[in-house]
Amino acid sequence: MVERRKPISVEDAVAKVSANSVIKQKETIAIEEAYGRFLAEDLIASHDVPAFDRSPYDGFAIRAEDTSRASANHPVCLDVVGAIGAGFVFEEEVQALQAVRIMTGAPIPKGCNAVVMLELTKEVTSENGQQQIQIKRSFNQGDNISRQGEDTQKGTILVEKGTQINPGIVALLATFGYAQVEVAIKPKVGVIATGSELLNVEEPLAPGKIRNSNAHMIMAQIARAGGEAIYYGKLNDDFDECLVATKKALTEVDMLITTGGVSVGDFDYVPAILNELGANVLFNKVAMRPGSVTTVANLGEKMIYGLSGNPSACYVGFELFVRPMVRKSLYSHLPHLRKAQATLGVDFPKPNPFMRLVRSKVDFIDGQLVASPSGVDKSGIVSSLGGADCFMVLPGGTRGYEKGMTIDVLLLEDTQGSEWPWSNIVASYK
Amino acid sequence: MVERRKPISVEDAVAKVSANSVIKQKETIAIEEAYGRFLAEDLIASHDVPAFDRSPYDGFAIRAEDTSRASANHPVCLDVVGAIGAGFVFEEEVQALQAVRIMTGAPIPKGCNAVVMLELTKEVTSENGQQQIQIKRSFNQGDNISRQGEDTQKGTILVEKGTQINPGIVALLATFGYAQVEVAIKPKVGVIATGSELLNVEEPLAPGKIRNSNAHMIMAQIARAGGEAIYYGKLNDDFDECLVATKKALTEVDMLITTGGVSVGDFDYVPAILNELGANVLFNKVAMRPGSVTTVANLGEKMIYGLSGNPSACYVGFELFVRPMVRKSLYSHLPHLRKAQATLGVDFPKPNPFMRLVRSKVDFIDGQLVASPSGVDKSGIVSSLGGADCFMVLPGGTRGYEKGMTIDVLLLEDTQGSEWPWSNIVASYK
Repeated sequence: MVERRKPISVEDAVAKVSANSVIKQKETIAIEEAYGRFLAEDLIASHDVPAFDRSPYDGFAIRAEDTSRASANHPVCLDVVGAIGAGFVFEEEVQALQAVRIMTGAPIPKGCNAVVMLELTKEVTSENGQQQIQIKRSFNQGDNISRQGEDTQKGTILVEKGTQINPGIVALLATFGYAQVEVAIKPKVGVIATGSELLNVEEPLAPGKIRNSNAHMIMAQIARAGGEAIYYGKLNDDFDECLVATKKALTEVDMLITTGGVSVGDFDYVPAILNELGANVLFNKVAMRPGSVTTVANLGEKMIYGLSGNPSACYVGFELFVRPMVRKSLYSHLPHLRKAQATLGVDFPKPNPFMRLVRSKVDFIDGQLVASPSGVDKSGIVSSLGGADCFMVLPGGTRGYEKGMTIDVLLLEDTQGSEWPWSNIVASYK
Repeated sequence: MVERRKPISVEDAVAKVSANSVIKQKETIAIEEAYGRFLAEDLIASHDVPAFDRSPYDGFAIRAEDTSRASANHPVCLDVVGAIGAGFVFEEEVQALQAVRIMTGAPIPKGCNAVVMLELTKEVTSENGQQQIQIKRSFNQGDNISRQGEDTQKGTILVEKGTQINPGIVALLATFGYAQVEVAIKPKVGVIATGSELLNVEEPLAPGKIRNSNAHMIMAQIARAGGEAIYYGKLNDDFDECLVATKKALTEVDMLITTGGVSVGDFDYVPAILNELGANVLFNKVAMRPGSVTTVANLGEKMIYGLSGNPSACYVGFELFVRPMVRKSLYSHLPHLRKAQATLGVDFPKPNPFMRLVRSKVDFIDGQLVASPSGVDKSGIVSSLGGADCFMVLPGGTRGYEKGMTIDVLLLEDTQGSEWPWSNIVASYK
């Protein structure tokens, strides 16, 4: 009746999942839709920046050689022969002892090779009524000119594919003329909730029942990871019903998550269903708390996840094992949660043979990361999930942990991500 | 021709902006749409959690008193009179020397007051064919029972209004039956780009022209802040055209941003337009780099922003002055960028009389925040924006800054936010 399961380490479990390939696909969308999506191609500078020699200031474009003898006592007067606003071009070649009024960003006129800031000039009128400027110092060729290509040269890779598009990247896309953007197609991730105890959210509570929170939570986690959630509804603990639904879902999605039905009880059909499907089970128990009863399998290029029905365990299982595969299919080479070191803000006196992943909150105190649990760490408890922005990683062992120790945290809301494997998991005194 | 402007400090500028009221409005949406939105009402526990006394393990529900004399040498045998899966209720009252097979999460049957874990029992059959379990130790009343309300009591505020809904909060909403969620209506933020030098993104580069990156960038910043962007297009530097467009936009939006047209040049109409509208100008110059030429005004309950046409200045101006007003209208009481201390990763030898806000990247090194510029800090340079996840805050003064000093950073991608005013801006050796 009860299946025996051998737990593997979290590191091994993530490595086994990560070893699988995923389907990556691109689509072309308008720049207006690009924010939050993932680049499917490197963002390459399509021209130099600046694209032409331009003025960084409001002032006057001049020929530096005309000012070579200028001083406070012997100012030079230049004839103002025109004005160029940003976006306009001065068509004539500027001659000796001439100057052109120039606005920030406007191109340097032919013949000029320096810019004098407005506040260093004085407007005067010559005896014959010619508008002039007085300049009281000399300038060198190239003074106050932003040179073509000095910021960025054409062909430079500005942002690597697999990066999530933030507002700054949108600015780059616009600058370089990417009205259409190649982004990763969001992988379709199916969600099936199982368990006769589950009520739909809108149903009133009834004796013995709980509302189906996991499916909604996972759909939000899928969205945060960058995928598209497809909900197949809540099934009863019935083998045939679960098998039919699973088979149907697998024809429509890139990955499939079932939640519930994987604790070691009498009404759990996930192992039998995976067997019936001919799926290759990577592991069915992980040496971690919460979420030890987590099953991951593959069937061709599709991953199938049996996450625990326990909300916290389900949440952790998603972030460790599903999120990286979603991100991989979004071309990310940093698909895992970003890891950082933090000071432990509380005591964890009780040892645990399994690695604990504690839903926590990071504070920044005097320039240091300090992590504390976001709620009571009981795996059945849902209220700590709302405030969590990281997991503490407490390796399993025979000793507890004390406030002030250095531990690793995995950041949930970070936009950077990390590679796998973790170089090392620490938990020690500094 | 050139307007004189008196700069005010960044602190004063943000305080002046924050002193304005904003329109807050609610709407009711389905839980499926809630991820990423902002709660307009506190999330309150609508029932106890657990809602009933339940079993945290797979095992047998028993009467503790039946085991009072049980030991390894004198095990007690209890008749198994039924089984309860999660979601089911055992209808009869359990009598002396009876036990009920119980799954994780199932309610404790009437008459029982403890649960024995499966692995501590042995299944046996009595001489008359009755299925029994053998128990080799005694249990106390309440052993292994998750008590009604032990996680959360009905009526508890679990998440405050103004909080952005993350996957954990979605789980809470589902658990407590919020099939419909009260969220803040996204404020409508209008965007007008001005400047004859601007090309649309799809247009080929031409002499003297640059593509309009600011409008696209700001629309993504509005989305990140939680607002709804409405784009009114790119206008030429023409007073009447700008005035008509501004008036039209103000009838349709909650806040209006213009970009370009506020540097002190000849082709800038923002001051005249604000005057014509009868808007109250809060300030038109801020002692900061980049973005010193930033104008903020109000007209009734609507904010009007004149952000610099320079991309970096525009970006900074948005995050300091627009974002908090967007967040306030989303019911947030932490509307400003989250502030943290960090170690300065590079030298800034040149002093600047104005406060610098340097587009930067935070690394977590040995448990500490370390901030370094995400690109060359030249205000015309767009490429550093893509990699920025914070601003360094370098107060103005007569000295530069050195690598290793402690400085403040404002985090761009953080989900928490902060209050205003900043308690203090530091930049010092530890």
